[in-house]
Amino acid sequence: MRLRNKPWADDYMRENDHVVVQKPFEAKGDWKSLFDNKDNPLHLEIGSGKGQFIAGMGKQHEDINFVGIERVKSVIVGAVKKVLDAGTSNVRLVNEDAEDLRDLFESNEVDHLYLNFSDPWPKNRHEKRRLTFRTFLEQYEEVLVPGGEITLKTDNRGLFEYSLMSFSQYGMLIEDVSVDLHADEDPLNVPTEYEEKFAAKGQPIYRCRVRFRT
Amino acid sequence: MRLRNKPWADDYMRENDHVVVQKPFEAKGDWKSLFDNKDNPLHLEIGSGKGQFIAGMGKQHEDINFVGIERVKSVIVGAVKKVLDAGTSNVRLVNEDAEDLRDLFESNEVDHLYLNFSDPWPKNRHEKRRLTFRTFLEQYEEVLVPGGEITLKTDNRGLFEYSLMSFSQYGMLIEDVSVDLHADEDPLNVPTEYEEKFAAKGQPIYRCRVRFRT
Repeated sequence: MRLRNKPWADDYMRENDHVVVQKPFEAKGDWKSLFDNKDNPLHLEIGSGKGQFIAGMGKQHEDINFVGIERVKSVIVGAVKKVLDAGTSNVRLVNEDAEDLRDLFESNEVDHLYLNFSDPWPKNRHEKRRLTFRTFLEQYEEVLVPGGEITLKTDNRGLFEYSLMSFSQYGMLIEDVSVDLHADEDPLNVPTEYEEKFAAKGQPIYRCRVRFRT
Repeated sequence: MRLRNKPWADDYMRENDHVVVQKPFEAKGDWKSLFDNKDNPLHLEIGSGKGQFIAGMGKQHEDINFVGIERVKSVIVGAVKKVLDAGTSNVRLVNEDAEDLRDLFESNEVDHLYLNFSDPWPKNRHEKRRLTFRTFLEQYEEVLVPGGEITLKTDNRGLFEYSLMSFSQYGMLIEDVSVDLHADEDPLNVPTEYEEKFAAKGQPIYRCRVRFRT
């Protein structure tokens, strides 16, 4: 949690209500109507931070609509700026604590989910808080379309290993794995701010793409 | 393939017929009878090399019977010596090219399979030669007991990533993953000769344990 106070944050988010969804819980079941092209698939990022990923993805994939959720107000304002600077109209941001995605999204409403550098909660007794714990997978399965996919990126070895096992235990299909993403030099990879700093130190970034079996 | 000639190799293997199984295809369906304790589980290593792993495992787990297969004669003689030096009576070695394990083992005859530092066959057109390609998994599923497990270790990133996907695609359960085994400092890990050299350079060793679903 950033404690830095940004008293202008509320005003800034209200002024940019074409980017920041003001009443997100009312959008449940109708997210597509918030975008110019309602037929495009909807991709969701949990924990958008300062927004480099979602702004970059929005620019790279103009045929996809993106929603980014970030609970920390002093952080999400940076994401708003990134989206405005990118000049794309296919990204919306939500300043909420997404404890249960089913409060925000109807069943089958999301096509793809991104979990980027989530809190690893390394202690065993905090397993239930990890965003790849079984109860979260149940949420994701519900809001995602049948056969929906999750892409996870992390620098945290423990979280990555745990997540692979949790996905497998849940019966999901592992479609893609990289245990050193930046060595692969994937030209389409959009790094988060955190990822960029971490990879610059030569530390491996882990990524996997998994799918719910239908 | 080691080309170093060891003209004494054949004699040495015959002299140590309590370690080297002379007619392995005749043991099919009856491997347990080759061991003192016929009721112990049977673990199989493909590609035993100079034998540090299987000799070390034999010593660490006296309640398990081990069979190691190595096709290169000039290499397996090193493994014979390691097993003799370890002084264990629960390890047998086989000097064959194990193209199809079903020629050597009956259905449900093996309890656990080890794939250690297999040839990665990095080119796409050689995918079928990788020991975790679907057709090999079919062999393993047949010779292993229902719910049988495979432990894979490799330093090769591409082979590890491919294998996780192949296991998952086949419907197997990923029970354990390490993307940096030597950072975990697992006190029970028995390193192969190759693993020891590679890990000493600070390179990651990958390991996973997977299970056929019943």
